[in-house]
Amino acid sequence: MKVRNPRTGLYDYHFAELSEEDIAAKCSKLSLGQRHWSASGLSYRVNILQQWKSAIQLQIGALEDALSKDTGRVWESKLEINLLVESIDRWCKMAETFFVPIPEKETRIPFIRLQQAWEPVELVGVISPWNFPLLLSLIDTIPALLAGSAVIVKPSEVTPRFIEIMNSTIAAVPDLAKVLSYIAGDGKTGASLIKYCKLICFTGSTATGRKVYAAAAEYMIPVFLELGGKDPAIVLPSANLEQAAASIFWGSTANAGQSCLSIERVYAHASIHDELILHLKKIAENILLNAFDINEGEIGPIIFENQVQIINNHLRDALEKGATLITGSTQCENIGGGNYCRPTILSGVTHQMKIMQEETFGPIIPVMRYNNTAEAVALANDSIYGLSGAVFAGTTEEAMEIGKQICGGAISINDAALTAIMHEGEKTSFKLSGIGGSRMGAVAMRRFLKQKVYIIKNGMELSPWTTQLHRKKKLE
Amino acid sequence: MKVRNPRTGLYDYHFAELSEEDIAAKCSKLSLGQRHWSASGLSYRVNILQQWKSAIQLQIGALEDALSKDTGRVWESKLEINLLVESIDRWCKMAETFFVPIPEKETRIPFIRLQQAWEPVELVGVISPWNFPLLLSLIDTIPALLAGSAVIVKPSEVTPRFIEIMNSTIAAVPDLAKVLSYIAGDGKTGASLIKYCKLICFTGSTATGRKVYAAAAEYMIPVFLELGGKDPAIVLPSANLEQAAASIFWGSTANAGQSCLSIERVYAHASIHDELILHLKKIAENILLNAFDINEGEIGPIIFENQVQIINNHLRDALEKGATLITGSTQCENIGGGNYCRPTILSGVTHQMKIMQEETFGPIIPVMRYNNTAEAVALANDSIYGLSGAVFAGTTEEAMEIGKQICGGAISINDAALTAIMHEGEKTSFKLSGIGGSRMGAVAMRRFLKQKVYIIKNGMELSPWTTQLHRKKKLE
Repeated sequence: MKVRNPRTGLYDYHFAELSEEDIAAKCSKLSLGQRHWSASGLSYRVNILQQWKSAIQLQIGALEDALSKDTGRVWESKLEINLLVESIDRWCKMAETFFVPIPEKETRIPFIRLQQAWEPVELVGVISPWNFPLLLSLIDTIPALLAGSAVIVKPSEVTPRFIEIMNSTIAAVPDLAKVLSYIAGDGKTGASLIKYCKLICFTGSTATGRKVYAAAAEYMIPVFLELGGKDPAIVLPSANLEQAAASIFWGSTANAGQSCLSIERVYAHASIHDELILHLKKIAENILLNAFDINEGEIGPIIFENQVQIINNHLRDALEKGATLITGSTQCENIGGGNYCRPTILSGVTHQMKIMQEETFGPIIPVMRYNNTAEAVALANDSIYGLSGAVFAGTTEEAMEIGKQICGGAISINDAALTAIMHEGEKTSFKLSGIGGSRMGAVAMRRFLKQKVYIIKNGMELSPWTTQLHRKKKLE
Repeated sequence: MKVRNPRTGLYDYHFAELSEEDIAAKCSKLSLGQRHWSASGLSYRVNILQQWKSAIQLQIGALEDALSKDTGRVWESKLEINLLVESIDRWCKMAETFFVPIPEKETRIPFIRLQQAWEPVELVGVISPWNFPLLLSLIDTIPALLAGSAVIVKPSEVTPRFIEIMNSTIAAVPDLAKVLSYIAGDGKTGASLIKYCKLICFTGSTATGRKVYAAAAEYMIPVFLELGGKDPAIVLPSANLEQAAASIFWGSTANAGQSCLSIERVYAHASIHDELILHLKKIAENILLNAFDINEGEIGPIIFENQVQIINNHLRDALEKGATLITGSTQCENIGGGNYCRPTILSGVTHQMKIMQEETFGPIIPVMRYNNTAEAVALANDSIYGLSGAVFAGTTEEAMEIGKQICGGAISINDAALTAIMHEGEKTSFKLSGIGGSRMGAVAMRRFLKQKVYIIKNGMELSPWTTQLHRKKKLE
C-alpha cells in the first residue's frame, strides 16, 4: 500500500498489507503470550514497561523523524513523544494505586463471604487515527498492558511511518514483544482485528465508529469508541479577553485543528465579541505556516488529503451563508504539494452553517455573538457531539456555573482543550462523541478487566434456600 | 396480543400493543421527568423509592397472584417479591455509599485542579425475560433510578400479567410515575425502545442479545447484555456429597431450571461419581411437580412453550448418543395443558451432546465423570458461555484453587448458584454470557452515569503550552 507525504503530496512510502491468516496468527501468538503476562503480576509488567520506556528514549530521533514525515509537523511530534514517555510513568503509578489487594468481605448472610478478583481481557485491539498517530495509538494500549491484556495496535494507514520504529522499540524488550505488536493496514485490516480480538478500542471519526460498533456487535465483543467532537468555548463578559483569545487560539489551531478536542465553536457575549475577535486576529496574523521550512512556522499541513474537501466545503458554505472572514483562508492552499489552511477567524456565523454543526478538523475559529448565558448554553448544547468544552470568565465560580450546564465529558475552566494535557480526570464522551467508560484516570483500566467474585459458603450445613425447595423432604 | 397460561395452555389473557407513537410519547415524557428526578438529589430519590416499596407491599397478594399465573409457580413468585422488597433497601444503602461528595483534586501541574462529577443517562430501557419476570425487570431498574435516570421497562410478552400491578404501584407514587413506567409488548416494542432510549439493559437469550446489540450499535447507544449460561459444577472427592447433591439439586431445578445461572453441567470425580448420583436421585424422587395443585409440589411448568422443544431435543439427543436416564423424564409431559419436566438425572454424558453444550433451561442434571482436576477444569471451560459456576470440596481452599481456573464471573464455593441470593458481589459475564460492567454491587450504578470532569486553571497568566505554540510571538 502506497502512502502519501502530507508536505509534498508524493507517495514516497509503502508498506505490505498483512493477509487475514497473518493477522489471525499474530493475534493467536499474542493471546498465548498474554497468559504469562497476566500471571506474572503488576510489578513485572511495570518493570517491562519501564524497560520499554528506555528503549523508546533511545529512538526519540528516529520516532520524531518518522512522525514528522507522517504528519508534516514537528512541534506536535515532539509533544506526542514527550507525552508518551511521561504517560508510561503516570500509568505505572496509577496502576499501582488501582491494583490494591481486595480484602474478603462479610455479607448480610452470616455464613457467606465474598472475594473479588480481576481478570484481564486476553487480547485488546487498538485502532487509532492519523491526527496524533503515536499518542492515540498508546492512550489505550498502556493501561491495557498494565491491566494484564495483550494488545495489537493498528494505526491509520494515512500515517504508518512510525510503526516500524515502534516495533523496533518493542523488539528491544523481548518480554513485551510477546504481548504487544503494531501492524500497518487500512480498514480491511481493522475489520479483521475485530474478529480475533476480545475487545476493541477505537479512536476516530463517528462515521467509522459506527462501523466498528456494528462489527463488534456482530462478533459479540465489547467496544470503546472515542469519536468526533465540535467543542464549544463560551466567553463571558468578565473574562480576561487576551488570555481567553490565546487559549482558544491554542485549543483551535494546535495540530492545525486536527484534534477531536479542538475548540471548533466560540460563543462570545455581545459586549466583548468585537474585542475578542481583535485579540484572536492579532494572534492569527502572527502565526505562520510551516510550509517552507518544517522547523519554522506553527501550522502544519492537512495530514489526510480527504479532509481538505471537508474544510473547503465548510468554509464555502459559511461564506455563502453570510459569514465574514476576519483573517485566514477562504480555502486550503496547495504549497509545494501539501495542503495548508491558515488560522482562520470567522464572524457572523449561525447554526445553519456546517462550520457550526459538523466536525471541521481545521484551524478555523468561528465566533458567534450571544446576548445572555441561557442562549450561550443552548447554542453550545445544540450539537450531535458532546466531547468537551471550555468556559472563560472572571472567576472560576462564574465559569463553573456555565460549565455545569454544558453537555460534555470534560469542561476546561479558563483554559481550552485541557484534556490534551491532563489525562488524570475521569470523563466519558457524551452523545455521538463516544461509547463506554472513561479512558482517562486509573478507572480506565477497568475497561480491560473482567470482574470475578467468589461467593464462599462456610460450613457444611445446607443453606436455607436449598432446604426451602425441599419442602416435601422437610415435611417427612 | 393474546397470552398463554403456562398451567392450562389456554390463551386467557391479552394486552393491547402500543403504537410506535405511543412509545415515543411515553419515552419523551419520562425523559422530561428525569430532569427534576436527577436534579432533586439522592435522598429525594431514596425517599420516593421507599414510598414505592410501601406501595408494593400493599399489593403483595395481587402481585403474587399475577406472577403465579404468568409463571405457573408459587414459591419462586414469593421469592421474587421478597428479593425485590429487600433489594430496594439494599440498593438505597449502596447508593448512599456510592454517591459520596468527590473532593477537588490537585494535579501534577500546580495551577490546574480537577473536579469530578456524575451525570445520569436520561432514559434507560430495560428489556427483561420471562423466567423471573418481576425480579429481572427490576435488577437494573432500581440502580438506574437511584443513579438519577428515568426508566422504561418492557418485560417479556410471555409473562405480562404482573405489569398492570406494577404500574398501579408506580401510580401510587406520583413522583415516581414521572420517571418509571412498565409497558407490555414483544420484540417489536423492544426494538422501538432502542430508538428512544439512551441506554439499554437487556436480560435474555444470547440469540436475542445479538439482535439487541446490533440495534444498539445502529442507534449508537450503550448496551448492557446479560445472556445465557451453561454453568458447570465440579465436585471433588473431598466434598460432602450429601450437601453438594442438595445444593446442586437446588441450583439446577429451582424455577424448573429456567434460570441463566442454573447449574446445567455436573463434573464428578470418578471416585465419588456413583455416590453423588445416588444422592441426587434420592432428592429427585422426593420432589413433585406442582401440576395438580399449584401450592403442592416444587417443580412448575415450562413457562415458555417454545422452550419445550429445546428441552425435548436435548434429552433425545443425549439418550440417542448413549446417556443413561437415572431418574426423570425422557421428554416434557403435558398435564392439564401445561408442559412439565420432572427433575431429571443423566449419567454417561459427553461433550458431543447438546445437553452439555447448549443452554437447556430445564430441571435436568447431566453428570459427567472426570479423573483429575485438570480434566475437570478443561471440561468446565469447554463452553461458549462463561456466566458462573460452582465448586464443592472438603475445604474452601481446595475449592478456591479450582474456582480460580473456571472461566466465569461468579464462582460459588461449596454451594450452587449463589448469585441468585447474593447480589452484592461485583461480577461481569464472560464469553457469550454477556457484555458490559457488573450489574451487581454498588458499581452497577456506574453503568447509568456519564463522567464529567472540570479541569480548572487557576490564575490568569497563560499556560506554557499556549505560549509554546506562539513561538514567533515569543521571539519578538
